[in-house]
Amino acid sequence: MSILVVGSIAFDDITSPSGSVKNILGGAATYFALAASYFSAVRVVAVVGEDFGPEHENVFRRHGIDTRGIERAKGKTFRWGGSYFDNLNEAKTDFTDLNVFETFHPEIPKEYEDTEFLFLANIQPTLQANVRRKMNGVRLTGCDTMNYWINRTRKELAETLKLVDLLLINDTETKMLAGEPNLPRAANKVLAMGPKALVIKHGEYGATIFFREGSFGIGTHPFRAPTLPIEEVKDPTGAGDSFAGGFMGYLASQTELNREVLKRALFYGGVMGSFAVERFGTERLQSLTREEIDARFQVFRELTHLD
Amino acid sequence: MSILVVGSIAFDDITSPSGSVKNILGGAATYFALAASYFSAVRVVAVVGEDFGPEHENVFRRHGIDTRGIERAKGKTFRWGGSYFDNLNEAKTDFTDLNVFETFHPEIPKEYEDTEFLFLANIQPTLQANVRRKMNGVRLTGCDTMNYWINRTRKELAETLKLVDLLLINDTETKMLAGEPNLPRAANKVLAMGPKALVIKHGEYGATIFFREGSFGIGTHPFRAPTLPIEEVKDPTGAGDSFAGGFMGYLASQTELNREVLKRALFYGGVMGSFAVERFGTERLQSLTREEIDARFQVFRELTHLD
Repeated sequence: MSILVVGSIAFDDITSPSGSVKNILGGAATYFALAASYFSAVRVVAVVGEDFGPEHENVFRRHGIDTRGIERAKGKTFRWGGSYFDNLNEAKTDFTDLNVFETFHPEIPKEYEDTEFLFLANIQPTLQANVRRKMNGVRLTGCDTMNYWINRTRKELAETLKLVDLLLINDTETKMLAGEPNLPRAANKVLAMGPKALVIKHGEYGATIFFREGSFGIGTHPFRAPTLPIEEVKDPTGAGDSFAGGFMGYLASQTELNREVLKRALFYGGVMGSFAVERFGTERLQSLTREEIDARFQVFRELTHLD
Repeated sequence: MSILVVGSIAFDDITSPSGSVKNILGGAATYFALAASYFSAVRVVAVVGEDFGPEHENVFRRHGIDTRGIERAKGKTFRWGGSYFDNLNEAKTDFTDLNVFETFHPEIPKEYEDTEFLFLANIQPTLQANVRRKMNGVRLTGCDTMNYWINRTRKELAETLKLVDLLLINDTETKMLAGEPNLPRAANKVLAMGPKALVIKHGEYGATIFFREGSFGIGTHPFRAPTLPIEEVKDPTGAGDSFAGGFMGYLASQTELNREVLKRALFYGGVMGSFAVERFGTERLQSLTREEIDARFQVFRELTHLD
């Protein structure tokens, strides 16, 4: 089945203890689309500037990603610069040049209207809600957000959360959104805001999915998937978006959404996040095979499963 | 089989968002012994003062714990006061009165010399090493330590680490001990210091065990066990010691130390830690049944296992 991601395409400057790169292709929609492309047909709605050339578009095309929804605007593509120090879990933002992304109003091409799965990457909540409202036929909508929107557009975000099935955020964002320091209690508060399920990403410790009573008809027992302890974390940028791409991409490849499928999706999310951080930018995500992905899935299983 | 723990018995004052208690029985050896007592015969070497009465000793005795190694000294028992705020992972120490613990020199009773399993709770590393050297017949030695000893007695700690099989510490302690911010690389550096295996406790995210090449003959693949996301964390004090008690206690109950046994031990560690935090002090650990423990073991398995 097909999955549509709406979000940012960017050029990034990244410095980490492993080195430094400039002007590499990034952005939430890019990481998501590449990760999801190993599982499903992917479509992208994003905006880029005049500096986005065929060599960049080909990164998507080589993975069979439908780029008809990428709007070309006058000006420059969104640019972000970030540095990681010893604590690789947190980036220090060096600069943010929104450029053409500042006035991004996602337009859904006619050909995309039959898309079954939708992922609203981290953009302004009202834009997310507008996209969701246009896509009446979707079977499942996933959504990301960040501290910035939780603090500044809480009311708008609350409206968006009523329209989505799955919210994928991290521990800090969950606690902030709920105003509650205990994670399971915060999860329940967030679920009461609308989503059927909440995926909390714990960075190097994996992720937990919490279910709202009655959602998917599979009970409310949470499920937790690990990530692999990785020796070579070169660049954590995009790990969360790659997680979301693996998670949603796997869901979109399945005919039924039961508990077992959601559990496996959580494992695949962790797998794709763990690959993403092994090289700078999207380098590793561009060069994977499904065999490598399934081999790591098995490693994750062995890492956590009793006989 | 029997397991001996050498460590502190204390009286604690604890404040958390759930309330406040004064003068309750605590200390690493107490939490460890109670948690381990559900799996194995437990012996304790510790020191207490004149304020340690029969009502306190009975807490151990009711669980069949051998208290002959508890030395009574002139003066008061070790006292600790701590407060937890929203971040329950970190205690603010309000006071530490070492009292009789200040001059603690662990004496091993003759009757304890045949003990098969030894756990050196968090005390000064040279004292740990001395105990280990006296116990020539032990089959397996586990060891804890803390930032204080890593910073101030690094040389002494290095000597101790050559004498132990298992080290159980948390993420921060691992990175500090190794001088390396990447966890798997830090783990390998710590393993090179002596222990056959390193158990890293991740608090609410579970624990990972790393193996030294050739140790236990079971390869070097790490294994990760979860903890349960808990809505009611009343008091995190002793969670790590309870984890160690469940982990070591389960090991001591098994005839063979293979990979599967070590994996299950890690699960039982998480189970005992998760019970400990549900009530203040050792209250929950005092009132458990093996059925409750095994039921939670199953919950942990379901939380993380694919079909």
